[in-house]
Amino acid sequence: MERLFDKELTALKERLLRMGSLAQNMIRVAIKGLVERDESLLEEVFKNEEEVNQLHIEIDDRSMKLLALHQPMAIDLRFIAATIKINSELERIADQAVNVSQNTQVLLKYPQLKPLIDIPRMAEIAQKMLNDSLEAFINKDPDLAQATLAEDDKLDDLKDQIFRELLTYMMADPGTIQRALCLILISRNLERMGDHATNVCEDVIYMVQGRDIRHPQKPPASSRFH
Amino acid sequence: MERLFDKELTALKERLLRMGSLAQNMIRVAIKGLVERDESLLEEVFKNEEEVNQLHIEIDDRSMKLLALHQPMAIDLRFIAATIKINSELERIADQAVNVSQNTQVLLKYPQLKPLIDIPRMAEIAQKMLNDSLEAFINKDPDLAQATLAEDDKLDDLKDQIFRELLTYMMADPGTIQRALCLILISRNLERMGDHATNVCEDVIYMVQGRDIRHPQKPPASSRFH
Repeated sequence: MERLFDKELTALKERLLRMGSLAQNMIRVAIKGLVERDESLLEEVFKNEEEVNQLHIEIDDRSMKLLALHQPMAIDLRFIAATIKINSELERIADQAVNVSQNTQVLLKYPQLKPLIDIPRMAEIAQKMLNDSLEAFINKDPDLAQATLAEDDKLDDLKDQIFRELLTYMMADPGTIQRALCLILISRNLERMGDHATNVCEDVIYMVQGRDIRHPQKPPASSRFH
Repeated sequence: MERLFDKELTALKERLLRMGSLAQNMIRVAIKGLVERDESLLEEVFKNEEEVNQLHIEIDDRSMKLLALHQPMAIDLRFIAATIKINSELERIADQAVNVSQNTQVLLKYPQLKPLIDIPRMAEIAQKMLNDSLEAFINKDPDLAQATLAEDDKLDDLKDQIFRELLTYMMADPGTIQRALCLILISRNLERMGDHATNVCEDVIYMVQGRDIRHPQKPPASSRFH
């Protein structure tokens, strides 16, 4: 019985990693399509999403069956609970990559507004956060999870910087408004990916340490857009 | 043993409903602050968030203990798994109400752009969706969950309509850009609340029927912003 359970845990982990690597690929390809202004690349993102959605259902289903049939305790229970949560975060990251692609489709109807530097930078950070959060999960490594959490500030800062810059464009020339809006929305899609990777890290820390680090004292509300 | 378990399930349900009613109040008060341009109301939203965050941790903790100590089967297991998921959706709805409040704080630095009609309408729909999704959960009512799912289209349509209208404002007068952006972001905050209520409905249907209705065939990507 125990051996079957371990085998099923390994299979579950593999499915989750497959989903994670699909999500990472979706971010990479969506941003490539944006930077190279190549709409055909976006089709790959939409195709990947179908597989992600199937995995989303399959992983939930496998997790529930493991809970029901094996009634796991302690770390195994926390592992499965973490899997259910991480599964939902990965699906949402993939959704955001789809949103990037859809916003890119609108953007590509117009001539290029400006060369893109900060948005590809945000995408790199988001991909690394996703990768590291999953590595932390697999290796049950709360230190890596903690280090990855800190990366999220970089995304927030870049998002704010992009917003300010594009606001200047829009104010100076209303002809840029639609394109600037697309880019603002894309930067927010990327920032939300970071939020989901952050949630994964928090789930990892809870799984390993049984300690809930969510909702620490927050700084007072700033005058940022949210 | 069984009676203690039932008592604990009831307590869990009560905590989740408390969280739901806090989230609903946060939406109501945030939009009241926006419509009446009364920044002092927003403080209530930030205060509610603290309680929501505590409940978020408490509900997860209670759920995990129930899973570990009672090893529930079938409908009880699905009820607890649904609670863990709904808990996370409610926390995110509350987060969005906080974002509405923060965007409102920025907006209130400027004179009024226009009387608000569609945004309060969106807030009403979001509140009703939240309320009905929780009622569906409590009454294990998949029909109500299904009916509530359909409401989400109204939010999407209103969001698109608001976007188009505000785009016209921005193009005509760059002096309105910052305010219009605030309102666009607020409409997106409200739309995301609807997405989370939708997730709650899907969790309810899965809980009651053991049937996963997520990810049906989607229509082709439109040229909407995402």
